[in-house]
Amino acid sequence: MLSVEEARARILGALQPVGAETVALSEAWNRVLAAPVHARLTQPPADVSAMDGYAVRAADAVEGAELRLIGAAPAGHPFAGAVGAGEAVRIFTGAVVPAGADAILLQEDARASGDSVVVTETVRTGRWIRRAGLDFREGEELLPAGRRLTARDIGLAAAGNHPWLSVHRAPRIGILATGDEISLPGDPVAPGGIVSSNAHALAALVRSAGGVPLVLPIARDDVSAIAAAARGARGCDLLVTAGGASVGEHDLVQRALGPEGFALDFWKIAMRPGKPLIWGRLGDTPLLGLPGNPVSSLVCGIVFLWPAIAALGGRPDLAAPLRRAKLGAPLGENDRRADYLRATLSMDAEGRRAVTPFETQDSSMLKTMARAEALLLRAPHAPPLEAGSTVEIIILADLGL
Amino acid sequence: MLSVEEARARILGALQPVGAETVALSEAWNRVLAAPVHARLTQPPADVSAMDGYAVRAADAVEGAELRLIGAAPAGHPFAGAVGAGEAVRIFTGAVVPAGADAILLQEDARASGDSVVVTETVRTGRWIRRAGLDFREGEELLPAGRRLTARDIGLAAAGNHPWLSVHRAPRIGILATGDEISLPGDPVAPGGIVSSNAHALAALVRSAGGVPLVLPIARDDVSAIAAAARGARGCDLLVTAGGASVGEHDLVQRALGPEGFALDFWKIAMRPGKPLIWGRLGDTPLLGLPGNPVSSLVCGIVFLWPAIAALGGRPDLAAPLRRAKLGAPLGENDRRADYLRATLSMDAEGRRAVTPFETQDSSMLKTMARAEALLLRAPHAPPLEAGSTVEIIILADLGL
Repeated sequence: MLSVEEARARILGALQPVGAETVALSEAWNRVLAAPVHARLTQPPADVSAMDGYAVRAADAVEGAELRLIGAAPAGHPFAGAVGAGEAVRIFTGAVVPAGADAILLQEDARASGDSVVVTETVRTGRWIRRAGLDFREGEELLPAGRRLTARDIGLAAAGNHPWLSVHRAPRIGILATGDEISLPGDPVAPGGIVSSNAHALAALVRSAGGVPLVLPIARDDVSAIAAAARGARGCDLLVTAGGASVGEHDLVQRALGPEGFALDFWKIAMRPGKPLIWGRLGDTPLLGLPGNPVSSLVCGIVFLWPAIAALGGRPDLAAPLRRAKLGAPLGENDRRADYLRATLSMDAEGRRAVTPFETQDSSMLKTMARAEALLLRAPHAPPLEAGSTVEIIILADLGL
Repeated sequence: MLSVEEARARILGALQPVGAETVALSEAWNRVLAAPVHARLTQPPADVSAMDGYAVRAADAVEGAELRLIGAAPAGHPFAGAVGAGEAVRIFTGAVVPAGADAILLQEDARASGDSVVVTETVRTGRWIRRAGLDFREGEELLPAGRRLTARDIGLAAAGNHPWLSVHRAPRIGILATGDEISLPGDPVAPGGIVSSNAHALAALVRSAGGVPLVLPIARDDVSAIAAAARGARGCDLLVTAGGASVGEHDLVQRALGPEGFALDFWKIAMRPGKPLIWGRLGDTPLLGLPGNPVSSLVCGIVFLWPAIAALGGRPDLAAPLRRAKLGAPLGENDRRADYLRATLSMDAEGRRAVTPFETQDSSMLKTMARAEALLLRAPHAPPLEAGSTVEIIILADLGL
């Protein structure tokens, strides 16, 4: 059985980022830059006022001096002339500082009447002037390739005068749930059957990782049905199957896809929940086979599918950040499989993060999975731990999950 | 001047959640539930096998015993008969346990040949059986109203047999940038002009908070242009303006909107960046006037607009979580305005979170804002702090910002 780390490395090593597309700035939020963004202009473009007040020569603007008002410079309407000795120009935040002026007299430090401005507080040279290029200069790199764009980044790209951005297209992920026992939500449920939850949970996980899901029709537990469904995933960047991957006679996915040209890389990992995990390639399409249990499918989705979509989407080095927490309850020894326990978070008396696994960790319990706030990681053969020990966790909210 | 807390309370106190809409389960990810979701069935619907193996009577299945195979129960195909003394039924994960059986013999603990199954490891009563209702029971509340749906929640709602969900519609937020000096990205820039970044940065912030932005055309610094633009926001759940709100002669928003029926609540808060902040109501539409400086506009957007959209969207109690960190550099005394310093995060030698403010905090520096990972909060009149002191921060990634 492969370790989790080796399995993930083999998956990520086989994936290349998808190509780029051009999107409008207004559609680029949360997308991943395919090329760096350089400033197309200098910001501010010239020395500008940081406040409302008067553009003056500092040498003249000493307390008690009276200056002569010769014009105004609102933002967007530069003053055409120059400020001479004993002169002042009314100026507003963001407006270009007129030639000759070397400081801003704040309006609360002046008494104005008609064309006279009396200085009530001496001004320092350069005060309240934002220099040209304070924020950035033309040609400077504002945002690097591979960055997922925040609202702040969108503002910066706008200020750099970019109406369009080059981003990785969203990876297209086919999702194929298999099983005679499953039906779609709202459809008739057969005796002994259950409602399919994997496909739609995984589709939402795909969206949270920045991909576009393609939910294929449910395939019955039948070699030809699975093969036909998989053919529907041509053109996807990755095909994910859920179910049909376990060890019994109903391990159908491999049997169905073999004649379709499926090249298996591995199919078993030392992990709980989720031992049966298939990785290979169906023609040109990478294929990830997840277990059918809903919790196993989601945990393997978090550990393998989420970083795979990130890598396809231009963020190859992204993994779930491992964080530390104090253990809220004792834990027994672990066996040879890495364990991902569903757990809740709290703060202990000293304000430190505490993590407490749910008592029952059955891989069919979706309600527990939905209520979990973290996955608590246990290495293979980890020794028993006392409450209060430090453990590693993945916080699900860190991944938007 | 109002405190930040009082201003936010007045804003949130004036807002009601918007109504609900019905969306398909496949479109419900990241939406906010308007009504709780109850299970429409019991899961599992009956006692089912947790493993691949044989359904047996525990009393018979002792090491060395030979059982007679009388049929098979794959998932979705319940075995119609009953398991009698000395009998076994082949069973697979998720399949209904046949009548008469009270335990599962694992396939790796059995040696099968023809219709004979030899037990190689004694079985315990009830072992490897998932009881009906282990995950949830019909009628049970699975997800509460007000919850923003994760991928895991989508899976749980699917398993509960819901093809449709009732969610709050996304609040519609009008965004009006004003100013003679600003132009849209890619449009011609006038002498002394700059490219408008606020509207698109705020639009992305609206999306990250779950709203739908409506970016209105830029309004010139002119009373009638601003009034006409504001009329275009009718039907929005909230109108946000950026710029035109400062203290000088160019404080146009209030003058323009007065004749349109604008009822002001407050317009000045004790905060940096962002002193000029307008809050009121234009007819039926709440109006939030943000400062024009791009950093001020975004910081006020984080502190006031983000929770306002959350409240409109059905999450009235949501605020940016305050976290603690060690200060990476000393800080001087604060004045009477609450300060929100742009800062980066790191880990100190002992694995504790450290926060270091950027040296220059000018409210025009969008590049610094884009590179920030946190806002460091300083209360009015906060005393000087040594490096290593504990401070409160907002981590921008916590808000998806």
